[in-house]
Amino acid sequence: MTAFAIGVDLGGTNLRIAAVDETGRLMEKMTVGTQVARGRDQVIDEMTAAIRELTAKFTVDRLLGIGIGVPGIIDIETGMLRESPNLPGWHDYPVRDEIEKRLGTRVILENDANSAALGEKWLGAARDHDDVCMLTLGTGVGGGIVLGGRVWHGFKGMAGELGHITVDPDGPACGCGSRGCVEQFASATAVVRMAKEAIASGRAPELERALRGSLEFGSKVVYQMAVQGDPIAQAIYRKAGWALGIVVADLVNIFNLPIYVIGGGVASAWEAFAPALLEEVAARSFVYAATTPDSHLPPDGKKTIITRALLSGDAGLYGAARLPMLPPEVRGHDQARLRTA
Amino acid sequence: MTAFAIGVDLGGTNLRIAAVDETGRLMEKMTVGTQVARGRDQVIDEMTAAIRELTAKFTVDRLLGIGIGVPGIIDIETGMLRESPNLPGWHDYPVRDEIEKRLGTRVILENDANSAALGEKWLGAARDHDDVCMLTLGTGVGGGIVLGGRVWHGFKGMAGELGHITVDPDGPACGCGSRGCVEQFASATAVVRMAKEAIASGRAPELERALRGSLEFGSKVVYQMAVQGDPIAQAIYRKAGWALGIVVADLVNIFNLPIYVIGGGVASAWEAFAPALLEEVAARSFVYAATTPDSHLPPDGKKTIITRALLSGDAGLYGAARLPMLPPEVRGHDQARLRTA
Repeated sequence: MTAFAIGVDLGGTNLRIAAVDETGRLMEKMTVGTQVARGRDQVIDEMTAAIRELTAKFTVDRLLGIGIGVPGIIDIETGMLRESPNLPGWHDYPVRDEIEKRLGTRVILENDANSAALGEKWLGAARDHDDVCMLTLGTGVGGGIVLGGRVWHGFKGMAGELGHITVDPDGPACGCGSRGCVEQFASATAVVRMAKEAIASGRAPELERALRGSLEFGSKVVYQMAVQGDPIAQAIYRKAGWALGIVVADLVNIFNLPIYVIGGGVASAWEAFAPALLEEVAARSFVYAATTPDSHLPPDGKKTIITRALLSGDAGLYGAARLPMLPPEVRGHDQARLRTA
Repeated sequence: MTAFAIGVDLGGTNLRIAAVDETGRLMEKMTVGTQVARGRDQVIDEMTAAIRELTAKFTVDRLLGIGIGVPGIIDIETGMLRESPNLPGWHDYPVRDEIEKRLGTRVILENDANSAALGEKWLGAARDHDDVCMLTLGTGVGGGIVLGGRVWHGFKGMAGELGHITVDPDGPACGCGSRGCVEQFASATAVVRMAKEAIASGRAPELERALRGSLEFGSKVVYQMAVQGDPIAQAIYRKAGWALGIVVADLVNIFNLPIYVIGGGVASAWEAFAPALLEEVAARSFVYAATTPDSHLPPDGKKTIITRALLSGDAGLYGAARLPMLPPEVRGHDQARLRTA
C-alpha cells in the first residue's frame, strides 16, 4: 500500500490535479479547464469531481490528504481566501471547509508561489537546501520563502509578496497600488505590455507583424523572437532581467540564503533574461560578490546559487501534494504560532 | 549574587561598555574614545582595560560573558571580522579569541545592527514580539532581523544588510558597489551629502550659514534647521523618509512581520522623516494596507507597527550584553546549523 496525496494547482486558466506518492513519484496527473468565469461554485464542483475521479483509481492506497495551491492570500486559520485578483467571488468563502465537507478528506490551502517553493525544495532545484527563496514569473510575479525548512508566512500569512518589491519608484503603476514593482517588468503581462509599447512607438516592426499574425500574442512569442535575434524582443527580456536582478540583489542582501530559484512560465525564457539578471546581482549585491567562487572569502564550498526552477510548471503541483505530508509546523501552519505571532 | 553580562558597542568614534544584569537593569556604563585611527591593538588594549575596570566593580556578582557589537560582517564560526569599512586593519584578525585569551571570559561577537535588534527585542519597542525587523540609521544604514525569536544570520552570517536595498536604481553611487541604496538617502552621511549638494547649488542659504558657523556640521544640525522650518532641510528629511518608506514597504511585503523598528542616531529626527516614511509605506505596500486598523480585514487586533526605537543609542549596547545570556540557537550562533546551512 502506497501513501499518497492529491495536489491541486488552481490557476487563473487551468486547474491541474496530481496524485503523488510520499517519495515524490507522480502517480497520475490531469488538467481541467477551470472556467473561472463561470464562477466559484462551478470551479469547486469541477475540482471535487476531478479529485474523486483521481482518488477512485487508487483505492488500495492510503490518501494522506489534499493540498491546494491558490493564487492569492490565504487565511491559514480559517482556510479562506483573503485576496485573489484572479479568483473574483472567492473572497470570504470557506474554501477549505467546503471542499473538506464534500470530499470527507483533510484539505490544506496554500498560496501558489509558496507551494512552488515547497515543490522545488522537495524535488527540484533547492532539494539540498533548508533555506530557499523562490520567485515565480507568471501572469504576475509571486514569491515563496522557506527558512529553516519551513514556509515563512508572516503574522498574517501575507509574507513572500516578492513581486511587489519596488524596482523603479517612478515606474509603471502596479495593480497593488504601488509603482515600479518587479511584477511590472518581469511578469508575462509586463513582457506583453512592453512589447505593445514598443509596437505603439513604431520602433518594433517585427513584433508588430507577430502581434498581427498570432491569435495568442504572449510572452512566449516575444521570447521566440528574442531567440531569433530581434533586438527589441531581446531588450524587453534584458529589462525583465535587470528588474529581477535588482530584486534578487535585495533578497541576497536581506536573507543571505544559499539558493534563489526562478520559476513560473516566464522562467522558460531564462536564456533571454538570466545574463542581465546575474550581471545586475553581481553589480548590486556585495553579499553576493562575497559569496561567489571568485570572492576573497575562504573557499569553503559555500556560495550563493541563483538558478532556474527544475520542475518548471509542476513545482506548484508537487508542492501542493507535499502539504498533507508535512507536519503543521513545517508547513508554517501551526495554529499556536499563528495565534501568538 | 546577581548574574550579569558586559555589553560592548564598538563604534567608529566611540567605544561604549556597560554591565547589565539578567533583568535588563543597567548596573554601570562607560564611554571610551576608541581612537580607531591609532590602530587595532590600541583599541583592543583600551577595550580590555575598560572591561577589567568594569568587572572589578562587581566581583561579588557572576559574570556570564562579554558580548561585543561590531560594525561589520562577522564570521560567527571563527569569531573574526570579515568586512568592516569603519575598522581598517581588523580583517582576518581573531578578535573573539584574542579578547577571550586576554580576559579569560567567554566573548561573543555580533554585528552592531543585529545587536541593536536584539536590544530592542529584549527591552525596547519590540519587547512583545518574537519577529522584528530593525533598521539603524547611523553613519551608514544597518539592519537586523529577528525571526521566531532568533537572529537571522543567513548561511554566511551576512544577512540583514538592509541599508543596501535598492531604492533608486540610478541613484547615487554607494560604497557597496551598487547605486541608489537606501543608505545613500537615510544615513547621517547621506543627510549631510544632500545638504552640501543643496548648498553647492546655491539654493540653501540658511544651510550654508549653518555649515560655515558650525564646527561639526552633521545630520543633527540639518534636523534642527528642519524643526526651525527651513524648507530645504525639511525636504532633505522628507527624501530620507521617502527612501525609508520604499524599503519598509519592501520589507513588509517580504516578511509580513508585526513590527518594524527604526533606530540609530538619525532616528532622533523621527518627526522630520516619519510622515513621508509612513505615507510611502501606505501607498506602496498592500500588505501594510491590509494589516492596518482601517483595512477591510477582520479587526483581530493584529496590525503592522512601524515605530522608532525605544532605547535610542543604547539598543546595541543592551543587545550586546544580552548575547551571553542567550543559548546559541537563539543568538543564531548554533554551529551545527551554520555548518549545514
